[in-house]
Amino acid sequence: MEKANYSKWQSGFVRLRSNKIFELVVVGIIIFSALVVGAKTFDETTRFTRIMDYLDLGVTIFFVIEIAIRMLAERRFLNFFKSGWNIFDFVIVVASLIPVDGGQSVLLARLLRVFRVLRLVSIVPELRMLMNAFLKALPRMGYVALFMFIIFYIYGAIGSFIFGDINPFYWENITVSMLTLFRVATFESWTSIMYETMEVYPWSWLFYVSFIFLSAFIFLNMMIGVVLEVMQKESAAHSLETGEGEAADIHWMREHLADLQTQISAIHMHVVANATAETSVDKQKSED
Amino acid sequence: MEKANYSKWQSGFVRLRSNKIFELVVVGIIIFSALVVGAKTFDETTRFTRIMDYLDLGVTIFFVIEIAIRMLAERRFLNFFKSGWNIFDFVIVVASLIPVDGGQSVLLARLLRVFRVLRLVSIVPELRMLMNAFLKALPRMGYVALFMFIIFYIYGAIGSFIFGDINPFYWENITVSMLTLFRVATFESWTSIMYETMEVYPWSWLFYVSFIFLSAFIFLNMMIGVVLEVMQKESAAHSLETGEGEAADIHWMREHLADLQTQISAIHMHVVANATAETSVDKQKSED
Amino acid sequence: MEKANYSKWQSGFVRLRSNKIFELVVVGIIIFSALVVGAKTFDETTRFTRIMDYLDLGVTIFFVIEIAIRMLAERRFLNFFKSGWNIFDFVIVVASLIPVDGGQSVLLARLLRVFRVLRLVSIVPELRMLMNAFLKALPRMGYVALFMFIIFYIYGAIGSFIFGDINPFYWENITVSMLTLFRVATFESWTSIMYETMEVYPWSWLFYVSFIFLSAFIFLNMMIGVVLEVMQKESAAHSLETGEGEAADIHWMREHLADLQTQISAIHMHVVANATAETSVDKQKSED
Amino acid sequence: MEKANYSKWQSGFVRLRSNKIFELVVVGIIIFSALVVGAKTFDETTRFTRIMDYLDLGVTIFFVIEIAIRMLAERRFLNFFKSGWNIFDFVIVVASLIPVDGGQSVLLARLLRVFRVLRLVSIVPELRMLMNAFLKALPRMGYVALFMFIIFYIYGAIGSFIFGDINPFYWENITVSMLTLFRVATFESWTSIMYETMEVYPWSWLFYVSFIFLSAFIFLNMMIGVVLEVMQKESAAHSLETGEGEAADIHWMREHLADLQTQISAIHMHVVANATAETSVDKQKSED
Repeated sequence: MEKANYSKWQSGFVRLRSNKIFELVVVGIIIFSALVVGAKTFDETTRFTRIMDYLDLGVTIFFVIEIAIRMLAERRFLNFFKSGWNIFDFVIVVASLIPVDGGQSVLLARLLRVFRVLRLVSIVPELRMLMNAFLKALPRMGYVALFMFIIFYIYGAIGSFIFGDINPFYWENITVSMLTLFRVATFESWTSIMYETMEVYPWSWLFYVSFIFLSAFIFLNMMIGVVLEVMQKESAAHSLETGEGEAADIHWMREHLADLQTQISAIHMHVVANATAETSVDKQKSED
Repeated sequence: MEKANYSKWQSGFVRLRSNKIFELVVVGIIIFSALVVGAKTFDETTRFTRIMDYLDLGVTIFFVIEIAIRMLAERRFLNFFKSGWNIFDFVIVVASLIPVDGGQSVLLARLLRVFRVLRLVSIVPELRMLMNAFLKALPRMGYVALFMFIIFYIYGAIGSFIFGDINPFYWENITVSMLTLFRVATFESWTSIMYETMEVYPWSWLFYVSFIFLSAFIFLNMMIGVVLEVMQKESAAHSLETGEGEAADIHWMREHLADLQTQISAIHMHVVANATAETSVDKQKSED
Repeated sequence: MEKANYSKWQSGFVRLRSNKIFELVVVGIIIFSALVVGAKTFDETTRFTRIMDYLDLGVTIFFVIEIAIRMLAERRFLNFFKSGWNIFDFVIVVASLIPVDGGQSVLLARLLRVFRVLRLVSIVPELRMLMNAFLKALPRMGYVALFMFIIFYIYGAIGSFIFGDINPFYWENITVSMLTLFRVATFESWTSIMYETMEVYPWSWLFYVSFIFLSAFIFLNMMIGVVLEVMQKESAAHSLETGEGEAADIHWMREHLADLQTQISAIHMHVVANATAETSVDKQKSED
Repeated sequence: MEKANYSKWQSGFVRLRSNKIFELVVVGIIIFSALVVGAKTFDETTRFTRIMDYLDLGVTIFFVIEIAIRMLAERRFLNFFKSGWNIFDFVIVVASLIPVDGGQSVLLARLLRVFRVLRLVSIVPELRMLMNAFLKALPRMGYVALFMFIIFYIYGAIGSFIFGDINPFYWENITVSMLTLFRVATFESWTSIMYETMEVYPWSWLFYVSFIFLSAFIFLNMMIGVVLEVMQKESAAHSLETGEGEAADIHWMREHLADLQTQISAIHMHVVANATAETSVDKQKSED
């Protein structure tokens, strides 16, 4: 009896979860919470702190209820955590529940609330697709980033050994050197750093120019390569799905060519068989 | 009688509208109006203000007449507004008709006249194609821009919360922070901003470096992705139209393969049918 | 008799022109002339001016002889000017023959000699191919550049009208404004220009941010679009030439599919004709 | 007897070389040696110099043993040097064996040890693939770089001739000019250099703007072209290997279409032959 009751409740949650108006309300609340976070950064809002806190509490409670509904709408409770996006939402909502009591932790609580804006990514399908594309690209990006890190590490160590005494602010140790190199890679006033070291080592421009070439090549490689790979796969998948475009045409042709081949082979056998049969019949006849 | 007269007039307008010389005159007047706008920015032209104003008036009248001709050349008046380019031209021409009487509005009138240069885009076919490509790319760009805005918003809020007291000029509130972040995204003296906050929070370089990676990735993604998608579609469409190139070859093959399949199926049926028939005839014969 | 003599001479020139060693000598002299040009920029070489001038004269004479050989190697003199590269070489060589007598013209003569380095492009096949790709891309680039110019013109006029009184150095008239905008497009200290105008017009950041988005989009579009288009055509052409790769496979398939179609149609007709004939024969037989 | 003993040893080395744990130990030691190199750049580590030196020695000995094992695992000693990666490893290991005795050479020894980090590239397969892609792209990059060098050389010579007296720091001779132009190409405070020369030559902005356009085009061309070419080949090769994707489909189709053609030709001949034969038989019959 109780179970039937529960499943009645549950189907209600399922209906609510997939309700268009409910979805719009959630999107609205997320945007509202983002605006509250943004408003807090203005000094003019310090006298409304109390109201802000109440609004914040309201948003927090709404999010807890919303996520509870989505959890209860699942047949089995643990299924909820099978989707990465659900875990993502859950972590963000739970993180903003951590109690805060003054001091440094106020800042932490605020920061945790900022990440609620990210829930927009998990709820708008187009943003979800973009995020998925980004995540799919991560492994390839990882190795290119590792390659880049090795280049930075080597140049950082060399820079620190050679230029360490010229200007410790830029080349004190390997971590400082690598930050300086990141600056050089973004072309940010890199010539002032170069002219400084060129006074001691006139050939040090080779260090900078070679580094810029290498880092620009690897960075662009990473970016363009990743973007193109993801895009091509996406577009091919879309073409196959809709049945239009080159990828779909080629796939269609490959399949149908296989069919054709079976039929032609059959015809070939028959015609050749017939021909041979007839020839032998003819032969027999003429022998008769 | 009046209607016949009107349609005679109308066909005259149609002929005029598609007249090559008329088109060249329109292009000439647009370029001339652009030069007048440019000339007005020179201090030396202040003594020719009167002449400038007369030239401006002449251009305005010409544009009104030209758009009237194109309107009258339509069979039904409202058809004119079915083309986005016509609406575009109409808005630009009407905007420059707004009466001006001194003060701030002179500036407004001047600005409205500047946009007349855009009519060049609507009249040169190649520029129109570029603009169409740009517009087709807008929806996809929109979502990537939204994604980018969310990243800016989150980093802006964090920056404002943490660095707000260090330098209010850069981090006062979320809007100022987002402008500062746009500056960082263009690599414009971003290290001076970073070194300032690193004095208080030595780990704040993580904030900047991660932001630069994210924004560079998303910005390049948006740009390259959009450009490539539009280009591929354009080039495939062009290939199909002219019947040359890979896309056209594949399309041609798909169509002809379907024809082949029909024929081969027919042959297959006949050959198999004949074979079966012959076999049964042979069987019957031998049974006879 | 004289004609036979001439054609003997000519075939000698043709053999010389396509001689590998002669080609290497020409490449060597071009590089040598480039080094002489480079050497002249060093102050230390002022005492060798005389030697330099003799070397220069030697190079000039060599180039005249070389181009004369290539001209005489042609069957008909005017054929020489049918190749764009020949005209290119001819202009560069003739330009360095212009007599110089002190003053400003020395600088001009020096500059004309600098362009001799470009002859390396006309003589190394790989560089010639790159240059051809660049030239093929020019028309498309032209229209995108025109589009970009319109954007610059409109923003330049607006900037000049609104910011002209704030800082004439950057916004005095439309030409100065457009140079400032080019600077903004390269992200060069653009924020200092923006902060200056934001003091008067707090919303002027919209002007800069929108301009950066538009110009970055169009510039990247131009660059990437052109590079990709040229590359794809090149790679497809190369694939068709060597008979390997996708483009060649697709082309091969299209051609052979057409052959197949002819054969299958013939078979179809025969089989169907036979079948119909047999049926009619059978019918007749049964009627008999 | 001795030979048998040796081959027992050798197979032991082969097994050790391909042992997963041994590989992980090597990777660990490489990372450890990188950390030692990084640690040396910190001033705080000067009192641990002794320990550092011992650690360094340990790493050196380990590397020598490891490379000896890999050499002995080869059937013939010289086979080891047939792989570029082995030569690479060998050079790095041998270079760090060079004895050092104080002074400038300490710096050299340190630098040689930095390059040990590169061994990570030779041992992680994914980084090896990236490096191979980079190397494959080098020839094409070389010619584009030569093209770029010619542009830099010409602009450098012109800049040095014209602007040499305005600011020798930037335009003294062709080498200094080319470094200045590289700076301009990275957009680094290029406007301050331009404004300086524009005071003397108001039209010199043409020099900078045209140079930026040319260098940006060539640089992007090089980068994007190389990245795309390598990627396309890689992805086509991967598609052919796995038998999935467009390239594989097209290849499959081409092969099978050839088979089909053979069969259809055979059918065609038979059917036509039969038809002709039958017709002649019919003719004979009717003649009979």
